[in-house]
Amino acid sequence: MISETYRAMLSGKSVIRELSERATALKAEIGEENVFDYSLGNPSVPVPQAFNDAIVRLLATRSSIEVHGYSPSLGIPSVRRAVADSLNARFSMHYAPDDIFMTSGAAGALAHAFRLVTGPGDEVLTFAPFFPEYHPYVDLTGATLRVVPASTRDFQINFDAFEAMLGPKVQAVLINTPNNPSGAVYSAQTLTRLSELLARKEREYGHKIWLISDEPYREIVFGGQSAPYVSRFYPRTISCYSFSKSLSLPGERIGYLAVNPESGVSAMLATMCGQISRGIGHNCPSSLMQLAVAEVIGMTADLSVYETNMNLLADELLSLGFELVRPGGTFYMFPKCPEPSAVDFSRKALRYGLVLVPSDTFGVPGYFRIAYCTGTEKVERSLEAFRRLVRAEYGGCL
Amino acid sequence: MISETYRAMLSGKSVIRELSERATALKAEIGEENVFDYSLGNPSVPVPQAFNDAIVRLLATRSSIEVHGYSPSLGIPSVRRAVADSLNARFSMHYAPDDIFMTSGAAGALAHAFRLVTGPGDEVLTFAPFFPEYHPYVDLTGATLRVVPASTRDFQINFDAFEAMLGPKVQAVLINTPNNPSGAVYSAQTLTRLSELLARKEREYGHKIWLISDEPYREIVFGGQSAPYVSRFYPRTISCYSFSKSLSLPGERIGYLAVNPESGVSAMLATMCGQISRGIGHNCPSSLMQLAVAEVIGMTADLSVYETNMNLLADELLSLGFELVRPGGTFYMFPKCPEPSAVDFSRKALRYGLVLVPSDTFGVPGYFRIAYCTGTEKVERSLEAFRRLVRAEYGGCL
Repeated sequence: MISETYRAMLSGKSVIRELSERATALKAEIGEENVFDYSLGNPSVPVPQAFNDAIVRLLATRSSIEVHGYSPSLGIPSVRRAVADSLNARFSMHYAPDDIFMTSGAAGALAHAFRLVTGPGDEVLTFAPFFPEYHPYVDLTGATLRVVPASTRDFQINFDAFEAMLGPKVQAVLINTPNNPSGAVYSAQTLTRLSELLARKEREYGHKIWLISDEPYREIVFGGQSAPYVSRFYPRTISCYSFSKSLSLPGERIGYLAVNPESGVSAMLATMCGQISRGIGHNCPSSLMQLAVAEVIGMTADLSVYETNMNLLADELLSLGFELVRPGGTFYMFPKCPEPSAVDFSRKALRYGLVLVPSDTFGVPGYFRIAYCTGTEKVERSLEAFRRLVRAEYGGCL
Repeated sequence: MISETYRAMLSGKSVIRELSERATALKAEIGEENVFDYSLGNPSVPVPQAFNDAIVRLLATRSSIEVHGYSPSLGIPSVRRAVADSLNARFSMHYAPDDIFMTSGAAGALAHAFRLVTGPGDEVLTFAPFFPEYHPYVDLTGATLRVVPASTRDFQINFDAFEAMLGPKVQAVLINTPNNPSGAVYSAQTLTRLSELLARKEREYGHKIWLISDEPYREIVFGGQSAPYVSRFYPRTISCYSFSKSLSLPGERIGYLAVNPESGVSAMLATMCGQISRGIGHNCPSSLMQLAVAEVIGMTADLSVYETNMNLLADELLSLGFELVRPGGTFYMFPKCPEPSAVDFSRKALRYGLVLVPSDTFGVPGYFRIAYCTGTEKVERSLEAFRRLVRAEYGGCL
């Protein structure tokens, strides 16, 4: 019988898709150059040439079986070692290669992480604003995602609301820093407080609580800063990483899961991932992609355009009177709408060629997301569209 | 809490792994050249040069976003079209691109197929001998895999046993032709009878029964023959394909799922796959791999070595008195052991440097699998080892 679960999902209306369709129609109408599409988080900068060079070199110098043959299900040993070495050097960690499991991007890592430490009936907590895909990611495992209300003042953690929701059914807490959609980077203080609260609740409930850290934006941090490495703050951390954004290759589906060895069960959990894979059709990520990312480990695409774009947009929006927590990283920002309905605001913005995603699906009403992974020239031209929007729809000031 | 389901799986003893460890020890002892490792189904021939050339050309001529950017979740449209066109031309089918869903190999295709048409509590039937991974593939979805006993005379279908097991809880039947481990290719007669039985039971039970066809060995068929295309025989067929064996790139995890349009719901099922992906951490297969296989669609690696090896081994084993159904395809054969216990036979064979997988995990006792995806020179040298084994352990004739 055809699955009712998945058939029912087909009728789910996607605000982003509806917006995308309107934007496409608008492009046909007023010309693509006049539409400022800030809707999609698709990296705009090219992959480092060294990555493509590594692929060509691997194809030319290694045997077909080495490059295209089966990878062990946990990942190619030399690649797992390269990942562990890189994390240890950068973040003063002590990962062994056995603590690393190679995945098809962060989505693949998260699919394994949830199954490692939760089961049907368990609760997973995350914090608004959050990546809307977390709902199907978690809910389709049989566990339930519950969302802690946002701390809109700074998009750090609303600890009062968090503690109130952190009941005994919570087996895992899911965080995303640097954050999509707010661009906030959790501070060391936030992570320390989070860690202390989790440890206290573990003692209170008599069971472990795992921290699942989704960190595809880890390398996109502004002002010459680095994001505090989450796993340093809490031993039972499962880090889920993707090279999609740092190397600008989201289509290649390559990332990893890293279990903090201080948990005492890191190698066991990484090995269990190989069992989880058998049930979800994962086998290993592309062998060639594994080998190629290992060749450029620690390198990133030229990510500076995102900071340039952020500064242009943030300065303009703040001067127009928008309420905005200035992002610390990513290629997103999350300003407050000048009216209560984010959907109404997005529709108005579209009249000025601005494609902005309303915030409701991110778990916060009345905000909008700007994904500024686009060319700076286009960002500069969009500023006038924001000015026209505010002038015409909101009387020139907010 | 750490998942007990997956933790318990860690202690599962793998006969193949144990054998592999013994083989490794043996190689150290008597020299790698004297160990004939027939245990693993890892393609031994190189990828076609045209495939690597396509990758290099794509990297040189397309933009980074085209090659490495996000693929739509159902696959790159031009690639879905190339797959549909190729299947239509080769097998007189009428697939639209919308009936195709790009996957991470056949394992990824199967993970989606089971979730499309079965749910927890449903039964899936398959036929011995069968690929042992089918058990976790199905059982971890919550459905139950049940295995129809083999027709050891020809390794076609044991229809009496099949009909007896085809009760109302069966929502899908899983077949694998050409077959791992027997090398049998289901005949048109077998597929016609299968189709008729399924249609009759559909009427009897008042619900649809889906045929899930796992066909990674479709292109490895001997004697200048082709394997009958399963989906031509039954409208509710979901074909699960991998390029792993035909192009010799099992590490690249690229394949597809194709739903027969005569089912009337093919595009809907392909679209539902995009929803299933969200729950299992699939996003899309590597964009570069999708584009590259489309460039060489219809091409295969030089697969002729498998037939050469099959003939050498089959002639020798038959002349030694082994019972053997001569394979019609794949790179496997499945002879009967000359004693009741396949494990005992495999252990004896190891004394002569022969690494042969006992049949029990394939659902048939008393047989062994030879995976002859290796160099012909090595196959030739192994024949003497088979002769010595039979001479020394079984008195020279069987």
